[in-house]
Amino acid sequence: MAKPLVFPVLAQFVSATAGRNMTRTAYVAVTLGVAMMTVLTIGPAYDAVAHWVDAVLWLCLAYFVFEWLVRLRHMRQRGRFWFYQLSGAGLVDAAGALAVPLALLAGVQPKTAWLLAILWVLKVVPGIPGLRQLRRVLVQESGPLISVLVIFLMVVFLASVAEYFLEHDVQPQTFGSVPAALWWAVVTLTTTGYGDVVPITPLGRIVAAMVMISGLGVFGLWTGILATGFAAETRRDNFLKTWETVSNVPFFANLGPAAIADVTQMLRTVDLPPRTTIIRKGTSGDCMYFVAAGEVAVDLPGRKVLLGEGHFFGEMALLGNTMRGADVITTKVARLLVLDLVDFRLLMARHPELAETIDAEARRRQLENQ
Amino acid sequence: MAKPLVFPVLAQFVSATAGRNMTRTAYVAVTLGVAMMTVLTIGPAYDAVAHWVDAVLWLCLAYFVFEWLVRLRHMRQRGRFWFYQLSGAGLVDAAGALAVPLALLAGVQPKTAWLLAILWVLKVVPGIPGLRQLRRVLVQESGPLISVLVIFLMVVFLASVAEYFLEHDVQPQTFGSVPAALWWAVVTLTTTGYGDVVPITPLGRIVAAMVMISGLGVFGLWTGILATGFAAETRRDNFLKTWETVSNVPFFANLGPAAIADVTQMLRTVDLPPRTTIIRKGTSGDCMYFVAAGEVAVDLPGRKVLLGEGHFFGEMALLGNTMRGADVITTKVARLLVLDLVDFRLLMARHPELAETIDAEARRRQLENQ
Amino acid sequence: MAKPLVFPVLAQFVSATAGRNMTRTAYVAVTLGVAMMTVLTIGPAYDAVAHWVDAVLWLCLAYFVFEWLVRLRHMRQRGRFWFYQLSGAGLVDAAGALAVPLALLAGVQPKTAWLLAILWVLKVVPGIPGLRQLRRVLVQESGPLISVLVIFLMVVFLASVAEYFLEHDVQPQTFGSVPAALWWAVVTLTTTGYGDVVPITPLGRIVAAMVMISGLGVFGLWTGILATGFAAETRRDNFLKTWETVSNVPFFANLGPAAIADVTQMLRTVDLPPRTTIIRKGTSGDCMYFVAAGEVAVDLPGRKVLLGEGHFFGEMALLGNTMRGADVITTKVARLLVLDLVDFRLLMARHPELAETIDAEARRRQLENQ
Amino acid sequence: MAKPLVFPVLAQFVSATAGRNMTRTAYVAVTLGVAMMTVLTIGPAYDAVAHWVDAVLWLCLAYFVFEWLVRLRHMRQRGRFWFYQLSGAGLVDAAGALAVPLALLAGVQPKTAWLLAILWVLKVVPGIPGLRQLRRVLVQESGPLISVLVIFLMVVFLASVAEYFLEHDVQPQTFGSVPAALWWAVVTLTTTGYGDVVPITPLGRIVAAMVMISGLGVFGLWTGILATGFAAETRRDNFLKTWETVSNVPFFANLGPAAIADVTQMLRTVDLPPRTTIIRKGTSGDCMYFVAAGEVAVDLPGRKVLLGEGHFFGEMALLGNTMRGADVITTKVARLLVLDLVDFRLLMARHPELAETIDAEARRRQLENQ
Repeated sequence: MAKPLVFPVLAQFVSATAGRNMTRTAYVAVTLGVAMMTVLTIGPAYDAVAHWVDAVLWLCLAYFVFEWLVRLRHMRQRGRFWFYQLSGAGLVDAAGALAVPLALLAGVQPKTAWLLAILWVLKVVPGIPGLRQLRRVLVQESGPLISVLVIFLMVVFLASVAEYFLEHDVQPQTFGSVPAALWWAVVTLTTTGYGDVVPITPLGRIVAAMVMISGLGVFGLWTGILATGFAAETRRDNFLKTWETVSNVPFFANLGPAAIADVTQMLRTVDLPPRTTIIRKGTSGDCMYFVAAGEVAVDLPGRKVLLGEGHFFGEMALLGNTMRGADVITTKVARLLVLDLVDFRLLMARHPELAETIDAEARRRQLENQ
Repeated sequence: MAKPLVFPVLAQFVSATAGRNMTRTAYVAVTLGVAMMTVLTIGPAYDAVAHWVDAVLWLCLAYFVFEWLVRLRHMRQRGRFWFYQLSGAGLVDAAGALAVPLALLAGVQPKTAWLLAILWVLKVVPGIPGLRQLRRVLVQESGPLISVLVIFLMVVFLASVAEYFLEHDVQPQTFGSVPAALWWAVVTLTTTGYGDVVPITPLGRIVAAMVMISGLGVFGLWTGILATGFAAETRRDNFLKTWETVSNVPFFANLGPAAIADVTQMLRTVDLPPRTTIIRKGTSGDCMYFVAAGEVAVDLPGRKVLLGEGHFFGEMALLGNTMRGADVITTKVARLLVLDLVDFRLLMARHPELAETIDAEARRRQLENQ
Repeated sequence: MAKPLVFPVLAQFVSATAGRNMTRTAYVAVTLGVAMMTVLTIGPAYDAVAHWVDAVLWLCLAYFVFEWLVRLRHMRQRGRFWFYQLSGAGLVDAAGALAVPLALLAGVQPKTAWLLAILWVLKVVPGIPGLRQLRRVLVQESGPLISVLVIFLMVVFLASVAEYFLEHDVQPQTFGSVPAALWWAVVTLTTTGYGDVVPITPLGRIVAAMVMISGLGVFGLWTGILATGFAAETRRDNFLKTWETVSNVPFFANLGPAAIADVTQMLRTVDLPPRTTIIRKGTSGDCMYFVAAGEVAVDLPGRKVLLGEGHFFGEMALLGNTMRGADVITTKVARLLVLDLVDFRLLMARHPELAETIDAEARRRQLENQ
Repeated sequence: MAKPLVFPVLAQFVSATAGRNMTRTAYVAVTLGVAMMTVLTIGPAYDAVAHWVDAVLWLCLAYFVFEWLVRLRHMRQRGRFWFYQLSGAGLVDAAGALAVPLALLAGVQPKTAWLLAILWVLKVVPGIPGLRQLRRVLVQESGPLISVLVIFLMVVFLASVAEYFLEHDVQPQTFGSVPAALWWAVVTLTTTGYGDVVPITPLGRIVAAMVMISGLGVFGLWTGILATGFAAETRRDNFLKTWETVSNVPFFANLGPAAIADVTQMLRTVDLPPRTTIIRKGTSGDCMYFVAAGEVAVDLPGRKVLLGEGHFFGEMALLGNTMRGADVITTKVARLLVLDLVDFRLLMARHPELAETIDAEARRRQLENQ
């Protein structure tokens, strides 16, 4: 029997799926499941490979049910059962596990019931990298965004009634009621313009032209608001991420809070996987790096120098020699702070003591490497 | 008889509708009225429920007439009769009350006359949250926006004459006159592209391609202008709102104007209704709050601490402990000033005396709660 | 005979048209001319009023020829004949005056020749308010804008060849050659989407989907570049306009250049025609004004106070009393500097001596008005 | 025989093509090649001039093969053979040289094989001016951009399944499968709107309206992100370019690093070809220039003054006299630093010693020219 073998695999699954939001298996299952659901709707393609498609769909469903049960158990053990159940992730997990079976039980046609497999794509949401940032922008700017939406809807309503009045005698088929005219107004104001419903009277066309130009305006306002919000959010995010790291680098530790705030605004945080080449010998560069966490290896002729937390490299680029002299590769997962040439010079001007430290170290290394 | 009952209700209505821009009843009436007007235009749907639709429409109209009369009386009592009558709100109220009855009296078909009920949506305008802000942006940037509009119109005219010249022999039906070509040009330059009028000669298509690319340019300019104006307006608005509040918080009162200007640029104002959870125990946070007005309750184990005007909370998050230790809920309508972690650190650098006060209070509270 | 009457009118015209770019008459002539040219192309409408249309067109043409000759004479008198002739304005004037007559002389059909009247709209260009600003943005950002245009064209070419390859067997009518596919690509990449040429093979549709998404990207880049350029240009423009004015206001004259630069960044310049109400009694306000040029009248009870160059008003709004106490109206064309509440407070913090002057003057006025 | 003549020409070609990315010949070859490839696909046009088209295509191909071989030899000589081969430029060169011949050898129809000539346009990529800048923006903002793309794809999938469910019974032809609905969703969400597939059920249209409005949102987010990134990149780029130049101008050399950083943020670098008129006598100007490299000639009455590295001109415009007093023309390729009036005044305020130097020099020149 397979059970003795299946169990340890399951146990591993349990620990893997319980903690993290999305395992690699889950990504595969979502992709496969949605792909098969798509095939299901293509008549001839499905008929050719019906058994395989059904098998994959059931497998994916089984996986998601299993994942959901594991998470429920895990959360109950930590006393966060209801917290999880009512959270966004919990609801998505439940919907992914239950929607299709419930539809099938309710007697819905299988081909239709399996369409609910599309809910599985919602599981990807928490894994989207910049989502939190986007949501903050939308929340911060919700006031003006809603204003624009209300204006959008008002223009849609006013335009569609005007257009209905002007066109419904000439085109009773397409402008026969206000809802039909509303459809036209949304299609036009978003500048989609299908062309299935088009005004033909001169006055109707003048109203339509004004609606299209308003469409550009709505677009512009919308974008302007989001651009403003995004710029503010980006500044905030960078600062937060970098402050944490800077205060952990010994090099900056003896600076006062004013100077740290200054330095923080100049550095950018970068996280790199192991065995990533940061600097390639012979290329030109315009930034230096501080190791905030992890370790990097400098490939000097004949030997390898390991640099750990608090060390820096690439400073030659800022002191006149823009051609990189050696390969630098991460040996572990590393968090680096990047200082651009631009900011190095501003920093040099405001905190000469820092610049001297870098300068001295650079000269020491140059001597050593000769 | 119902009169004795109706009168106090009316009296309450009078006071409610006279002062504020939009009562909840008015929103309901607008929504219902526009919905019924829409139903009116759908032949079969209307025939099924004609009586109900008519009744609701007349009711809404009666409400708006009543509201208008109440406001007129209210304004006359305060000697602002003509000021109100000629203001935007007064004109909209008058139009909403009179347009449909006048059209019916003038002998317009009822189905057509009721279309004027769409004017009721204009009553929503003053209630749009960020409208004042949007209008300021449009006014401030009106110069460049009008320039772009003039350029837009010039491109439209030049393109349509060119296209008429190139296409009217081949497609006399669609490009038979310059106005027809103007329709094409607007549809194309706004990138709507219905497809009802499409150039088919090679030269005509080259002109059209240039018009489309210009369309992108017009779009970009428009958006760029609005984005710039919006960024400036947002900065201004935040500053104004916050300055008022900051100077009312005792905590900041003994700072000089330079420091207040500094602090003001870092704080954000938030208005919250009663019984809103500001901080949820166990979540992580990166900001602290000052109570500018109203009151909040901190849910400590065993007791509830009420914090009124001038107090602050959530400061632990800024001092290393990002996990929130207690629920905080508003007890009344409260205006809070939010200080982000980012700005707290900049503030700490520039005004160490403020940071020390926060630090001392935080330590006092920690001792107290042990 | 009419000559003795016509001559002084002409003489006045000469002086009016020679100096300025566009007289009011010229605007009327452009509008009428283009409108009549439009009517000319509408068969039935033209037939009904052919004589009138022709008369107006010839009149407009006569005006533009006359205007051109007057300007030529004017410029020759100042020795700038060739400078004018080869400038944009000179070329447009020449084209407006000569294009239609030359076409008629060359034997072109009158209906076609008069289409060249569209060139008259180009005369409007120098009168567009923010044009110089827009041109500066386009010049400053020309590098990245051209890059995006080149990328746009490359995507168009690559996509159209791919689409031609994939579709020309299935749709020989619409995708029969690369130029036909190019038409499709431009229509799609600008998201216009006429729908006259649509890929139908699965692979063709995938390529098309990628083109559409690239279209969004191109759009976004374009807008981002223009928004950035526009923000920089707006800052620069405001500064320049205000600096000139600030240094002419005695109130600021005794400040050092550092303080003037500071003040300049806070003020906004506004030019107003005579008899414009700047402040309306009883409204609320959040800014004060300096008179940089011209004069304003303050409508106090019983008397009118005139404020000339260097004076300020509306300062009560910044000192706690936001309700305006009197109407203020311009008596001549006036240039005002606007100081927002936001900036007044920052100014107060940085230059307390200025704030004191304003404060003292405000208190003096308050006493006077009691 | 032609060989003795051909060889020196080839030798010159070799040196020209090996070093630079794109010679003028290469641009001509790309343009001609792609144009001829386009003609090839137009049946009647090709038949008329088939021999010429073929000849040009083969010639272009020959040129690209030759260019590739020359570069390979050149790179092998410098030991960078594999570096080049695996770089983007190397791959593009190889594809341009080999794609068409290999396709022909593989027995593909000539008309189809020559379509691969479109790959030649990729050679233009490294020559695009602002490309490096655009790439940096895309890399820096890749996080949020990918988020928006993922959200875009999720909306596309959810909408297309919903639309398939709602429409496939009514319109089996166009909404017959999820892939068909996906096509509709992409066409709609990008606001392209061909109109070949349009929902007709009421619910389907409501879903479609929401998709269109989401399209505006996606657009806005995308643009907002790119605008933010672009603004940051522009600042950085200007600073870097200018710093290098400023430190080479003797005039600024004796400033400390803080002042240089200050000055750098105010100057703009401009590179000009020889014989370019920088200042035209009699026009008005609002900036002054420093010569960072090269030389310019000032056309004074009776004599020509040459100004080399480190000199400045146009300073009168900043000292009150905005009318330019003389033509200034570059004599060699020149790199100029432009100082706007705006920034000159800020600079004057912060570094009075610099302003005095400019002032003194200006007065000296004025005396000299009298």
